[in-house]
Amino acid sequence: MKADLLYEGKAKRVYQAKDKPGQLVLAYKNDATAFNGEKKASFTGKGQLNNDISSLIFPLLHDKNIQTHFIERLSETEQLVHQTEIIPLEVVVRNLATGSITKRLGIEERTKFNPPIIELFYKNDELGDPLINDEHALYLSNVTSTELQEIKEKALEINKQLTAVFKKIDVELVDFKLEFGRLASGCMVLADEISPDTCRLWDSTTNEKLDKDVFRHGTGDLLEVYQEIFRRLEAKS
Amino acid sequence: MKADLLYEGKAKRVYQAKDKPGQLVLAYKNDATAFNGEKKASFTGKGQLNNDISSLIFPLLHDKNIQTHFIERLSETEQLVHQTEIIPLEVVVRNLATGSITKRLGIEERTKFNPPIIELFYKNDELGDPLINDEHALYLSNVTSTELQEIKEKALEINKQLTAVFKKIDVELVDFKLEFGRLASGCMVLADEISPDTCRLWDSTTNEKLDKDVFRHGTGDLLEVYQEIFRRLEAKS
Repeated sequence: MKADLLYEGKAKRVYQAKDKPGQLVLAYKNDATAFNGEKKASFTGKGQLNNDISSLIFPLLHDKNIQTHFIERLSETEQLVHQTEIIPLEVVVRNLATGSITKRLGIEERTKFNPPIIELFYKNDELGDPLINDEHALYLSNVTSTELQEIKEKALEINKQLTAVFKKIDVELVDFKLEFGRLASGCMVLADEISPDTCRLWDSTTNEKLDKDVFRHGTGDLLEVYQEIFRRLEAKS
Repeated sequence: MKADLLYEGKAKRVYQAKDKPGQLVLAYKNDATAFNGEKKASFTGKGQLNNDISSLIFPLLHDKNIQTHFIERLSETEQLVHQTEIIPLEVVVRNLATGSITKRLGIEERTKFNPPIIELFYKNDELGDPLINDEHALYLSNVTSTELQEIKEKALEINKQLTAVFKKIDVELVDFKLEFGRLASGCMVLADEISPDTCRLWDSTTNEKLDKDVFRHGTGDLLEVYQEIFRRLEAKS
């Protein structure tokens, strides 16, 4: 199913799909990284869990008329997606204050943002993915002003739908990171993954952290909490 | 002329104007600070120069229908201004890339921004005046979305007018920082000061730095270059 390796990121490898022009195979790795790659480890089974979780969530977004690059789950660790021109922006949506924003802006932990706050970060490892504003985004990345507005509107709609998805499994969607890509048609779609690597997920009752923060801060078992998210999602699907 | 001291900043003291409700006296200090107050020094005559330079520039903006808080120069180091509710944002306009943006975003020194880039920083010494986006500004500061748009439009118009003012004296306006305040009427006006403390000013021919960067980087005589800006402005007024 796979042909040439196009790109290797921190959490996935990207291959050209064999005999399927315009389609890619994403192969999820077992590596976990945090703090811009400063903390690293490998967890057997993590790649499969993120592939499984993403492969459950993307179709739920399709059901709500949100276009994504996802086509289908191919194997334990692989999924088939549409090739897109990736926009070098990390689009973060925050419902509750935690993590970097609390220190950076002196905002109290757990402050509720209503409306949610969107932040853009410039995807650039060398620069440490710096926070940018809209004008920086237009200058640095390959998006028009209209597309940037569209990306933000989509991010808010995705937030609404994902919040509902996680609410059903007694999980609070605290914040998350999205990436977008442009299809050959010019259409802007959700790309990358939706998983406990890219979302902060807190148990609605116990506030237990069910996401990569357990690895970042060494406060829990990554595989166990990712498995818990998958188990709950699968039970409701 | 002065009554109670209301506030002391790094570069100015702010007094209630005696018997003039709604008016303030700004007294310019001789202190120079850089790198969020980490580098400090005092230069006899600096306060007077910044008062004189600001007192020349504000009326030039009034002539172009740009409203500011400035009323009149009162003495060597003092000016009378309208009292405003200060918006806790530093509004930076950049025509050429230099300083923090080049490191933060990996942009080559002297890159021309067309259109100019506007950046907002949250005025908060404890947090080190962090860069913020529009959504942070709406969350953290006392502005509406319409006012924020108005502030940006005014900043670009002020950039246009100041660029012309400095061009006449063979100086390139590289970037500068503005602050805005809300009059009792609700009107948003330019506040603070316009001086070599708040503008990067390069000689158009020699590229010599005629601003606070000579103090920041220890590359020249602060009083001499501020005096040079005042001398050129006064000669054209």
